[in-house]
Amino acid sequence: MTVRIDNFSAGPAVLPVTVLEQARENLLSLGDSGIGILEHSHRGKAFLSVYEETVSRCRKLAGIPDNYHILFLQGGASTQFFMVPMNFLQSAQTADYLVTGSWAKKAVVEAKRFGNVFIACSSEAENFCEIPDERVASDSPVYTHFTSNNTISGTQFLCEPDTPNGGFLVCDASSDIFSRPIDVTKYGIIYAGSQKNLAPSGVTLVIIRKELVERGAAELPTRLEYRTHAETDSMFNTPPTFGIYVMGLVFQWIIDQGGLQAMENRNREKAETLYRFLDESDRFNATAKPNSRSMMNVTFASGDDEFDAKFIAAAKKAGFDGLKGHRSVGGMRASIYNAFPSAGVDRLVEFMREFESTQS
Amino acid sequence: MTVRIDNFSAGPAVLPVTVLEQARENLLSLGDSGIGILEHSHRGKAFLSVYEETVSRCRKLAGIPDNYHILFLQGGASTQFFMVPMNFLQSAQTADYLVTGSWAKKAVVEAKRFGNVFIACSSEAENFCEIPDERVASDSPVYTHFTSNNTISGTQFLCEPDTPNGGFLVCDASSDIFSRPIDVTKYGIIYAGSQKNLAPSGVTLVIIRKELVERGAAELPTRLEYRTHAETDSMFNTPPTFGIYVMGLVFQWIIDQGGLQAMENRNREKAETLYRFLDESDRFNATAKPNSRSMMNVTFASGDDEFDAKFIAAAKKAGFDGLKGHRSVGGMRASIYNAFPSAGVDRLVEFMREFESTQS
Repeated sequence: MTVRIDNFSAGPAVLPVTVLEQARENLLSLGDSGIGILEHSHRGKAFLSVYEETVSRCRKLAGIPDNYHILFLQGGASTQFFMVPMNFLQSAQTADYLVTGSWAKKAVVEAKRFGNVFIACSSEAENFCEIPDERVASDSPVYTHFTSNNTISGTQFLCEPDTPNGGFLVCDASSDIFSRPIDVTKYGIIYAGSQKNLAPSGVTLVIIRKELVERGAAELPTRLEYRTHAETDSMFNTPPTFGIYVMGLVFQWIIDQGGLQAMENRNREKAETLYRFLDESDRFNATAKPNSRSMMNVTFASGDDEFDAKFIAAAKKAGFDGLKGHRSVGGMRASIYNAFPSAGVDRLVEFMREFESTQS
Repeated sequence: MTVRIDNFSAGPAVLPVTVLEQARENLLSLGDSGIGILEHSHRGKAFLSVYEETVSRCRKLAGIPDNYHILFLQGGASTQFFMVPMNFLQSAQTADYLVTGSWAKKAVVEAKRFGNVFIACSSEAENFCEIPDERVASDSPVYTHFTSNNTISGTQFLCEPDTPNGGFLVCDASSDIFSRPIDVTKYGIIYAGSQKNLAPSGVTLVIIRKELVERGAAELPTRLEYRTHAETDSMFNTPPTFGIYVMGLVFQWIIDQGGLQAMENRNREKAETLYRFLDESDRFNATAKPNSRSMMNVTFASGDDEFDAKFIAAAKKAGFDGLKGHRSVGGMRASIYNAFPSAGVDRLVEFMREFESTQS
C-alpha cells in the first residue's frame, strides 16, 4: 500500500485518491482498448467519449446553460490575463479591475497593453489582507474582472461583485472553482487553471457566453481567438488529453460527493476548524481579515519568523507538506482545496496544538 | 497483465511501456515522497529535481550546447507558429518558409500577420508528396522556417535546408524530433509538440539560441516573449509538470536504447521493412516520392477507396489501430515513432501480405 502524506500545496495540489487510482488503472490501457490514456488519438472514438463525458459532467455539476461554451485551453490563467483584453478591450475602451492580490495585479499589467484599466478597488496598501467593501466603477466598462480567491494572501469573495455601470463579468476562478455553488449566468467568462481544484497542471478551463465568442476580435493569431476553440470543440490542435481525462474524473468525483453544495459544506467545515484554532491560539494568527477569509487557502503566521521556520520544519518532519507561505509574504499557508481530506485538517490542528504547547 | 494492441496513431501516440510503468508506479507517490507526481508543487524540491533531470537528459542526448535554452511551453506547435514571427519578424522584414505540408501552410498564415513571407518552395501542387529539391531564398530573410517531417503526407527532410542569404533556421520538429542525430548548432529555434516522440500532449519543447531570446521583441503580452520563459526556467506560471516528468523518462529511455544514432538505426529498419513491402505489393502503394519518404509516418493507398476502407476495418479488427490516413488525404498511414516497436511493424506487414492474398 502507498503511504500518502498530508499535502497542503497551493498547486499543483492533492487530487482525490480514487481519481488517481482510476488514472493509474488506465495508464497502460484505457478500459480494454489496449491503448493507454496518454496514447489515444484525440480524434479517436475513445478519447472523444472522454471529452464528451468531461463536458457533460461539467455542465451538470455547475448547471451551465447551453448558451455557454466549455473550453479546455492551455497556458494557465496567465494566458487568459492577455487573451481576455486582446479579444474584448479596444484601445479607447475601459475595463474595471478589482485588485485583491498579486494575480489580479498581473492581470492588470496585461490588460493595459490593450486599453484603459480602471481600478475598481485595491487592498494592496493592506498587503491584500482583505476584499475591499468599497468599490467604484468606471462610466461604461466593457467588462469587470475579479479574482474570486486569492491564493497568496488567503482571501476570497463571498459573492460576485456588482457591475452597476454594465459590462460583463470576468472571473479568474483558478483557486476556488467548483468549491461552492456558482450561478454561471452572472458571468461572461470564468476561467481557471486546472492545478488546484480540477486536475494536474496544464489545462485551463474556460466557461464563456456564446455571444461573447462571436463578438471577440478577429484577425488575431488563430489560437488566441476564443472562436477558434469554440468552433473546434477545443481541438483546433492537439488538446492536453490526459488533463481533460483527469478533470472528467474529478467532475464525477464531485458529483458522487453530492455536488457543489456538499463541496461547500465540507470546505466550510475544514476551513472553520482551522480558523477556530487560529483564533484561539496564543501563537498563531490568521493573516486575512475575518470577513475576507478564504475557504481554500488559510494563511497564518506567528509574527516571529524564527518560530514560523521552526514550525514549518517540524510540520514537514511530521508529514505535513507544503505549509510554507508564498515566498512574497512569508508565514504559513494551508491550502485545503476540494480534494484535501477533513482528517488531514484535524491532524494539522492537533499537531499545531501540540507544537504550540511544547514551545511556550 | 495488460493486453496492448499495435497503436499506429499519428499523435498522441504510443509511449515506451517501461515509461508508462514508471509513471504508473509514481502516480500515488513519487518515490517515497507520499505525494503523487501529479500533485507535487512545481516549486518544491521533488519536482525541481524532475525538471533538472529532464533538462540535463535533453542536453546530453542531443548534445545541446550551453548557448541554447531548453524550454517547456504550452499550446503546441500551433502557438509557435505565431510566437516565432511575433518575436522576430517585423512588418518591413521577410522570413522564408518551405511549404512542404499542411502544417507548414498554417505556419505561413500566422507569420503573414506580422511581416512578409517568402515561399522558398512548395509541393502543394503535388499534394505535398515530396520535399522539393529546388528552393529559392529571399534577399535577406530574418529566418528560414521548415517542417522537418510532414505527418499528413508522410515526407521528411533528409537534412537541414541551406540558408544561402543568411538568417537563422527555425524548425517545426514536432513529428521527428530525436528520431535521429541532430546538429542543434545549425538552428536558431527548434520546437516540437510533445505528443509524437516525446510525451503525452500538452508540452511544447523549445530549443532556442540564447542570443535570440535577448533579441526578441519586447512589450508583448508577458507570456508570449521567449525571455519570460528563459528567465524563469519555464516557471513563469505553473508548467505542465506531468508532461515534463514523462518527457524526462522518455529521454532516459532514449539514452538507455543507445541514443539518437541507435534510434535512427531502429527507425530506419522499421520504415524500410514497410516501404520494402509496399514497393513489392500488387495492391498497396507508398504515396510519398521515394527520395522524400518519412521514417515516422508511412503513408500508402491502394487507389481504390473501397479496398482501403475494407483494409482499415479488417486491420482494426485484428488489433492494428490508427491506420486510417488523415481525413484531408484519405488512404492509410502507419505512424511508427521512436516508441513504436519493430515487432509491431513486422506484424502489420504480415497482416497486409495475408490480406492482399485473400483479396486478389
